[in-house]
Amino acid sequence: MPVNIPADVGAGIEAIDTPCLLIDLDAYERNIQRMARFTRDHDLRHRAHAKTHKSADIAHDQMAAGAVGVCCQKVSEAEALVHGGVRDVLVSNEVVNPHMIERLAAMARQARVLVCADDAANVDALAAAAARYDARLEVLVEIDVGAGRCGVAPGAPAVALAERIDAAPHLAFAGLQAYEGKAQHVHDFNERRARIDEAIARTRDTVERLEQAGLACDIVGGAGTGTYAFEGGSGVYNELQCGSYIFMDADYQRIAMADGRPIDDFENSLFLYTTVMSKTKADKAICDAGLKAQSVDSGPAVVFGRDDIEYIGASDEHGVIRDPDNVLRLGDKLRLVPGHCDPTVNIHDWYVGVRGGVVERLLPVTARGMCL
Amino acid sequence: MPVNIPADVGAGIEAIDTPCLLIDLDAYERNIQRMARFTRDHDLRHRAHAKTHKSADIAHDQMAAGAVGVCCQKVSEAEALVHGGVRDVLVSNEVVNPHMIERLAAMARQARVLVCADDAANVDALAAAAARYDARLEVLVEIDVGAGRCGVAPGAPAVALAERIDAAPHLAFAGLQAYEGKAQHVHDFNERRARIDEAIARTRDTVERLEQAGLACDIVGGAGTGTYAFEGGSGVYNELQCGSYIFMDADYQRIAMADGRPIDDFENSLFLYTTVMSKTKADKAICDAGLKAQSVDSGPAVVFGRDDIEYIGASDEHGVIRDPDNVLRLGDKLRLVPGHCDPTVNIHDWYVGVRGGVVERLLPVTARGMCL
Repeated sequence: MPVNIPADVGAGIEAIDTPCLLIDLDAYERNIQRMARFTRDHDLRHRAHAKTHKSADIAHDQMAAGAVGVCCQKVSEAEALVHGGVRDVLVSNEVVNPHMIERLAAMARQARVLVCADDAANVDALAAAAARYDARLEVLVEIDVGAGRCGVAPGAPAVALAERIDAAPHLAFAGLQAYEGKAQHVHDFNERRARIDEAIARTRDTVERLEQAGLACDIVGGAGTGTYAFEGGSGVYNELQCGSYIFMDADYQRIAMADGRPIDDFENSLFLYTTVMSKTKADKAICDAGLKAQSVDSGPAVVFGRDDIEYIGASDEHGVIRDPDNVLRLGDKLRLVPGHCDPTVNIHDWYVGVRGGVVERLLPVTARGMCL
Repeated sequence: MPVNIPADVGAGIEAIDTPCLLIDLDAYERNIQRMARFTRDHDLRHRAHAKTHKSADIAHDQMAAGAVGVCCQKVSEAEALVHGGVRDVLVSNEVVNPHMIERLAAMARQARVLVCADDAANVDALAAAAARYDARLEVLVEIDVGAGRCGVAPGAPAVALAERIDAAPHLAFAGLQAYEGKAQHVHDFNERRARIDEAIARTRDTVERLEQAGLACDIVGGAGTGTYAFEGGSGVYNELQCGSYIFMDADYQRIAMADGRPIDDFENSLFLYTTVMSKTKADKAICDAGLKAQSVDSGPAVVFGRDDIEYIGASDEHGVIRDPDNVLRLGDKLRLVPGHCDPTVNIHDWYVGVRGGVVERLLPVTARGMCL
């Protein structure tokens, strides 16, 4: 199979094949340091969410800056990072498929492995698999703090499930998964804050009931890039799971701008690099980044640093760019900010890390497509 | 790296790990035969579009049924299929990046390679690369027949570009690329037909002008699954490029139903297989297929064969299923019809081919993610 690495280390940015993912290494490193500073200043742990980047290299950069480990969403994603040297992984999701429970339990022989649960029969299946491998699985009870997705109800149902985990020989009750996924992308500041206040109240109540039952929460985890300051200041959450902060994307930038956050907050460090591949019309250009180079679920990409042109539509392999002043030329290269970073990253095999216009690092997307 | 093949040949369908792509082999084979019959009955060639499936195995099945070769949209995609044994490939798109022009020309030493062009300087670059490899590249002039995307204007501009190709020693003028991409998904039959009538008129005029200039079109190519019967009956187009017919998807099925097409037309043969992974609410279930298992650009997935439940929302790794009668249980498996097959396929590494409830074939997505 031909090699499809979009660039060589040492090449100039103009020589990069497109479409591909570009990391601005300066902005990326500043984002890592900013999150490390926030969690350090607030006496919190950061368990960086690797669902965003799916890269063992990036996970190691985050841990070198202080992250205690990573979160993953899938067993196969976690395996890829464990093979890449990460030794502390929370699968922040339920694992139900029997074969994947088997792989999860086996992985716990190699690394510290944590997983979430919201069902009693699933806890029993996790316990049985852990016993077969003589492994120790740490289990968080996932509570539904408002997103209406996975998770048992806070309060008594969470305590009952925690007791079941605590009673299982090869399982250890590790705490609560209390992520409010729906609040992350709420554009209105006050509504977002109100949703997290509600999540914090439900979580606090559950932590207290668990304590009354004699069950301590080593981890009270949750929070994402849209809300981490709220959970981080709550006094209840002790482990933040932010992922997107490292790259940002068009939707998270719109939220930051609506909040009026300072410009020294998280920066766009991930770009979809694209080339103008057809220019037969005066008022538009066609670029080579379409639906097979990005996910448009959260709106289209934004052309970085340009307000004279606009990315207005994507088909499978093409992007349409409005070019009212006819400034673009065949072969021109542009940086697009993806509408939504996570599912866009999941399409690509490589990141091209650039600094000062030169390719400095090539990072494989270690767990690309690992959805099992 | 652990193996992430979702199933073993011979396994029962219930043992397949999810989320993954499932092919109903019976429906798939009927689709191939139907398209073969249509093109045979209308004395047309079929150059199957491999952008849909990106699979060398499927390309060989299509060619075994009569397809003359395949279309690809990218050089790296074409390379993957050439390495998989396909020896007649049209890159039905412009190639502008200098490094990829180099790879295109080099590939023409191994296989019949055709490419599209809509720019004179690009034709010169193709000619120079073909000369460097002492290769022969066949070039189609892409004309814009209404989609407003790539392509020169029909008529005189197309003739001028064809003459430039014809004059270049290592290039051969092969005909016209006249694909009306925007018409494929127009839901109103009369509007769709009118758009293609317009495309046919522009194409016919250009073919005649080329003949007057002494340039014969070996290929007049275009058409997709939404409109192939129109181009196929035009007497102008001689090579159809349908791709999605082999799988269908939720949007193409909506169009077929709106047209009142007979039920022996193309069938859904591709499914996103998913498992209920959380069931803590009476009125909904959470499944394991979200944005990292499908593209939602053309609307959400449809649960196949069920009107008692509905797939209503996707986040990165989760799908929300409305379950008003509380019929779903943890671990239940469902077949989803993807909203849009092409960019959904591009996320997955494997197809699991099933017949009679048993896994019969595992097909790698040979050119997955090959977007260069």
